[in-house]
Amino acid sequence: MALNSPSPVVLQVEPFGGSTRRHNTSLPHLYWDDAAVTRGEGVFETLLIHDGKVANFQRHMKRLQASATQLGLAVPDAEHWGQAAAEAAADWCGQIPGKKKPQAAMTWTLTGGRASTGVPSAWITVRALSDTQLKQREEGVAVMTAERGFSFQISPTKKQKPWVSLAAKSLNYTAAMAALREGRAQGFDDVLWVEGDRVLEAATSSVVIVKKDKRLRSPEPAGEIIAGTAVAALFELGEKKGWRCKHKELSVSDLYEAESVWLLSSVRMGARVTRINDKELGSPGKDSLKAVRGLIEEALTR
Amino acid sequence: MALNSPSPVVLQVEPFGGSTRRHNTSLPHLYWDDAAVTRGEGVFETLLIHDGKVANFQRHMKRLQASATQLGLAVPDAEHWGQAAAEAAADWCGQIPGKKKPQAAMTWTLTGGRASTGVPSAWITVRALSDTQLKQREEGVAVMTAERGFSFQISPTKKQKPWVSLAAKSLNYTAAMAALREGRAQGFDDVLWVEGDRVLEAATSSVVIVKKDKRLRSPEPAGEIIAGTAVAALFELGEKKGWRCKHKELSVSDLYEAESVWLLSSVRMGARVTRINDKELGSPGKDSLKAVRGLIEEALTR
Repeated sequence: MALNSPSPVVLQVEPFGGSTRRHNTSLPHLYWDDAAVTRGEGVFETLLIHDGKVANFQRHMKRLQASATQLGLAVPDAEHWGQAAAEAAADWCGQIPGKKKPQAAMTWTLTGGRASTGVPSAWITVRALSDTQLKQREEGVAVMTAERGFSFQISPTKKQKPWVSLAAKSLNYTAAMAALREGRAQGFDDVLWVEGDRVLEAATSSVVIVKKDKRLRSPEPAGEIIAGTAVAALFELGEKKGWRCKHKELSVSDLYEAESVWLLSSVRMGARVTRINDKELGSPGKDSLKAVRGLIEEALTR
Repeated sequence: MALNSPSPVVLQVEPFGGSTRRHNTSLPHLYWDDAAVTRGEGVFETLLIHDGKVANFQRHMKRLQASATQLGLAVPDAEHWGQAAAEAAADWCGQIPGKKKPQAAMTWTLTGGRASTGVPSAWITVRALSDTQLKQREEGVAVMTAERGFSFQISPTKKQKPWVSLAAKSLNYTAAMAALREGRAQGFDDVLWVEGDRVLEAATSSVVIVKKDKRLRSPEPAGEIIAGTAVAALFELGEKKGWRCKHKELSVSDLYEAESVWLLSSVRMGARVTRINDKELGSPGKDSLKAVRGLIEEALTR
């Protein structure tokens, strides 16, 4: 196809349920006194657009609302937000002739807004998938393990403080970005956060392992581990299709011993881990790969 | 005076030493794909403008450069940046007739820039001091102690990982902002981070205590504690003027027993702590207050 790549779409959303406005992406839209810029006060979601539709809308919406609550931001209305998301997806897909539309990545961002107005800023973007994302879906990823270097003290007997907010999907990704830069410099594609031998999550995705007899395992989301919408979608569909799905603490050696190891996220979907540090992981065989890929794809495109 | 408050100034800075450009503050200047907005990848400094000049320029410049290095951002050139800062200060002060200029707050921000261009975004803002800042300088602050809820595992025998970056002054202030919201809801002015009984720092300032015989103490900056430029400036001048200044671990009871307790930052300068949780702190007496205030003011306006 000789098509040019479709242009990104940015749709500004009135946070209190008002109108939406298509924004020219070659113009700036954030002000100098926006809390996203002055304090990093913002939350986001990244979603897959599949067949022109937003996949897993409800899960992302619930997490956006929970993240907003945790950061003390105005909580977006699901219906209004859903309409805006559909509008943005249609705008982007409208650039592509024909009925069949390629997948795209959508991002929702909600910030504390301008200090001078107090009105939250909110916008939705849609852009093409990157070549790297498509390649890693096909070929998998080599990961470097890294210690986050900090831990949470969350005591079940103490009321958890609202500012322990790693569990919110906030804009604070500096540690993840720093680790990714270091990992890439060393020839890795992604970073796997560990705490000693315990596996947490990857820089921007969740870890799932496949064990024999159709068993799926993923670390329990809590504290250091964001509740992955992709894992939730996979487990829900998996259970229906006869897989046994469980959240369970995983060690690095559990990963070595698994049939296959996957990094799950909404847009890249499943990227199989082919190497952990200097240790290559064996391939699980064509049938197993096909079954897992099929399940992931179905779960994440609904 | 019947003067209107001077307007804020925003000056965009070419990060590689090119030109500066005065930006209309009623127009947006950041793009949807700026790393500050998509990932919180940015660093900042807040400085005092005193008598039309940037105070403590070198200390802030060094920290900005160190923060940029830690986050893998382009490191700004001190001379170029200094010229831009002077230009922004002059722009703001130029709005005020007469020779005597009020103090102002300057912020420097440097981000990872737009994904589509890879060019870092950098800008300088100048704005009037807030009434709250001025009031807290005069009347002091009531603080709530709070556990950060996370700790760093920094081992002197292990090379510290580059992504343990609380020590960089990044845009990641969500935890501090959440704690401040909670504190304000409970009637406090500020939040003091503690770890058990150990005093770390306040939400956006450093802790200094005054003990008898002209001794100043502040926790050692490392790991969980940002190296405060204001404390460094205070200690340097204090030593010259016969105060004995030392970084030392402080407990909450050290604060109760001190002559006076101060939160130090560049713009609010010194805010005396008048209450910690439900415990009022006694006043140190007029002479001591005057001596400490004088030292702080001189140190932070140079």
